[in-house]
Amino acid sequence: MTQPKRQLHLGLFLFSTGYHPAGWRLPEAATDGAFDPKFLHRVAQRLEEAKFDFFFLGDALATSPDMQHTFPSQMVRLEPFTMIANIAAVTEKIGLIVTANTTYSEPYTIARQTASLDYLSGGRLAWNVVTGMDVRAAQNFSREKHWDNSKRYDYADEFVEIVQQLWDSWEDEAFVRNKESGEFVDGSKVHRINHEGEHFSVAGPLNVARPPQGQIPLLNAGTSERSRDLGAKLSSAVFSGQILLEVSKQFYAEIKSKAVAYGRNPDEVFILPGLVPLVGRTKEEAHDKYRELNSLLVTNYDVTPLSARIGIDLSGYPLDGPLPDLSLSVLPGDEVKWLVSLAQRAEGHEDITVRELFHYFAATSRGHLLIVGNPEEIADQMEEWFVERAADGFNICPPYMMGGIDLFIDLVVPILQRRGLFRSEYDADTFRGHFGLSRPENRFAKRAALQGVGE
Amino acid sequence: MTQPKRQLHLGLFLFSTGYHPAGWRLPEAATDGAFDPKFLHRVAQRLEEAKFDFFFLGDALATSPDMQHTFPSQMVRLEPFTMIANIAAVTEKIGLIVTANTTYSEPYTIARQTASLDYLSGGRLAWNVVTGMDVRAAQNFSREKHWDNSKRYDYADEFVEIVQQLWDSWEDEAFVRNKESGEFVDGSKVHRINHEGEHFSVAGPLNVARPPQGQIPLLNAGTSERSRDLGAKLSSAVFSGQILLEVSKQFYAEIKSKAVAYGRNPDEVFILPGLVPLVGRTKEEAHDKYRELNSLLVTNYDVTPLSARIGIDLSGYPLDGPLPDLSLSVLPGDEVKWLVSLAQRAEGHEDITVRELFHYFAATSRGHLLIVGNPEEIADQMEEWFVERAADGFNICPPYMMGGIDLFIDLVVPILQRRGLFRSEYDADTFRGHFGLSRPENRFAKRAALQGVGE
Repeated sequence: MTQPKRQLHLGLFLFSTGYHPAGWRLPEAATDGAFDPKFLHRVAQRLEEAKFDFFFLGDALATSPDMQHTFPSQMVRLEPFTMIANIAAVTEKIGLIVTANTTYSEPYTIARQTASLDYLSGGRLAWNVVTGMDVRAAQNFSREKHWDNSKRYDYADEFVEIVQQLWDSWEDEAFVRNKESGEFVDGSKVHRINHEGEHFSVAGPLNVARPPQGQIPLLNAGTSERSRDLGAKLSSAVFSGQILLEVSKQFYAEIKSKAVAYGRNPDEVFILPGLVPLVGRTKEEAHDKYRELNSLLVTNYDVTPLSARIGIDLSGYPLDGPLPDLSLSVLPGDEVKWLVSLAQRAEGHEDITVRELFHYFAATSRGHLLIVGNPEEIADQMEEWFVERAADGFNICPPYMMGGIDLFIDLVVPILQRRGLFRSEYDADTFRGHFGLSRPENRFAKRAALQGVGE
Repeated sequence: MTQPKRQLHLGLFLFSTGYHPAGWRLPEAATDGAFDPKFLHRVAQRLEEAKFDFFFLGDALATSPDMQHTFPSQMVRLEPFTMIANIAAVTEKIGLIVTANTTYSEPYTIARQTASLDYLSGGRLAWNVVTGMDVRAAQNFSREKHWDNSKRYDYADEFVEIVQQLWDSWEDEAFVRNKESGEFVDGSKVHRINHEGEHFSVAGPLNVARPPQGQIPLLNAGTSERSRDLGAKLSSAVFSGQILLEVSKQFYAEIKSKAVAYGRNPDEVFILPGLVPLVGRTKEEAHDKYRELNSLLVTNYDVTPLSARIGIDLSGYPLDGPLPDLSLSVLPGDEVKWLVSLAQRAEGHEDITVRELFHYFAATSRGHLLIVGNPEEIADQMEEWFVERAADGFNICPPYMMGGIDLFIDLVVPILQRRGLFRSEYDADTFRGHFGLSRPENRFAKRAALQGVGE
């Protein structure tokens, strides 16, 4: 059997009003999709028509109306488990990624909800493991304070281990359902896990049968050492927020080599940076749309965060004047040059102003790469990242809805398909299937089999 | 405007293999519906065709394969939030009741999941508030022990109060979405709740907009003083497990009068006992099916629990001999006589044996009334309970699936409709609507309006 050709993996990272902070203000844009199941169904079904690998919903555990001008789409949203369960009923093939936080929930609950969702979706679920970035969450969960990164990951490591054990607590053959004999369950194939750890004690068994995928694939994101470790050790895919090709190549190589150090096949850890594709039918249309979006930003043009990002104090520079000499930056390396070059490409010309750099920063400040261009240009950049091993695929963040995803699907996806980079038909109907991952054996069944051999 | 005529409210209490412990062993019965979304969709859609008020899913937080012969349908199941969210996508009118436990979860999480489900169902959600009966749950949630009733209800009272505040934390008009002005949200209509209580501290606001129903209706069950109080004070409907008409009338009157004492309209608290209708096309068919089900019980005929229930030690009596003289019972009142009379009616003859009494007890030991008969007999008994004010409706527990619900829908519901006791068409599409409950004003908007008047 020949190794199947490496292919792009594409998912949607849902922002109901688009990733661009002003996306909702475009005349043609949807503004109220966040709580409208019909809208969400349309999005998911559209992705499925385009043969996307997954529909992904992020999460947060606190909010404030102050976010309305910087990230309105993340201010409020439907809770992921309920929304994904709802979407599962109106789709058949596309993978579904739910986000669940290990800092503010219980392993038994997450094991139940994920296993149930895997049934409801026919094995299409993956779990994005997060520990929470928003310190305000503590105030919503009766906590004194939000734990530091190290404590959060101590809990997360144990949490995930428990959930994975619970998924195995019923062996695949535990259900006998023999009407003649009256045996409904073979009790010898049901296992308490009796976990007694540093942070949790959980007896089990789970009250849900083993999920269709056996073990539900994990995903994660994050740039901390601990999150990279978790990704390399346990995740089937790692989301990243790299906006620079060179930096993303380093990240890619690091996760893959760490995975090897954990004894894993590096081809079973997929690196998926976020990508905000601002597609136009022509180059001009794309740049026009980009400028239109930026003109709709509600901002006071406070350049402090941008100054910190580039290592040059911009407060003395006129907004509509030229950029300062980049060699003034106090930051080492070429990152600032690369960043400015991205802003130049987005504007479509080299002589950008401070305001224009500010716009690019505002449009991407949540960490995902925004590229502007006609369909061929977008496809070229995606191919470059893929071929250069900066990405195994992308977490697509449409800048506005629905046009932002429609144009990508109608114009860019066919190019990727023609180039043989992306599937034209699904050849699987589970999350594992889309990524070519096999179904793991049950740990308790394996143990029993080994004991049987030894007897 | 005339007061609408009082009508029955009917819901399904889902047991995927039926309420009878041996329901799954019938040749025609489904055995593997628990994790099959297609099966669950068919059930929900069937109920909607029959104009049921609601589809209800119970819950538990622990299990063991030892339950397989006493209550197989409750041994494993899909987690309620995910299952109900899935069913919401394939139904349009029927109310949906999700069970959530206040002892082992967080108010912010439950507020999010319920509010989200209310959106996903277009306002069809109600929340069954439970505090947990199963002491084994503690072992799955890193707790030393399961709290006693009093502590559980102390937490529950505060938990529910927080959730209700969070549902109001965004006023209905908080979302402006004005593309011209760039105002997405009116921050003055978004409220932190800043709850600092004895057991919880929760700042808010919720990161979900106010649910479509404003406040999601609560339901509860339980026989403890504290659970009755919670029901009378806060619930729109109270589930009960009364199997005796006289006892149910007392319960009904008590909850209604307590509700009045809390300043509520007693007609806005609906009493819904469980009912296991074993319907046959004829009387004979029904009794045959009942005997067939009992012949399939897997049991060692240990009479200890039944002896305790009737206050007579049955260990010396032959299983196939007659019942002892009921006046030997050490229990006061007529309850034992009534219980035996139910078993006689179920068998269809008076001279029942110890084994036959055991069967009735086994078939109803989880506390719900089982009645056996042709469609007219079932309808008569339901009407009697309704007219006598022992019930405002029923939580229907089919003894096996799908036949147990199909026969009820096909043969009993039309009789109830002909008698004017049950709707023939939906006249609402929300849970509140089905029960004639109005949408509550937002507490923060009300407060602001009152302050405005005072200025």
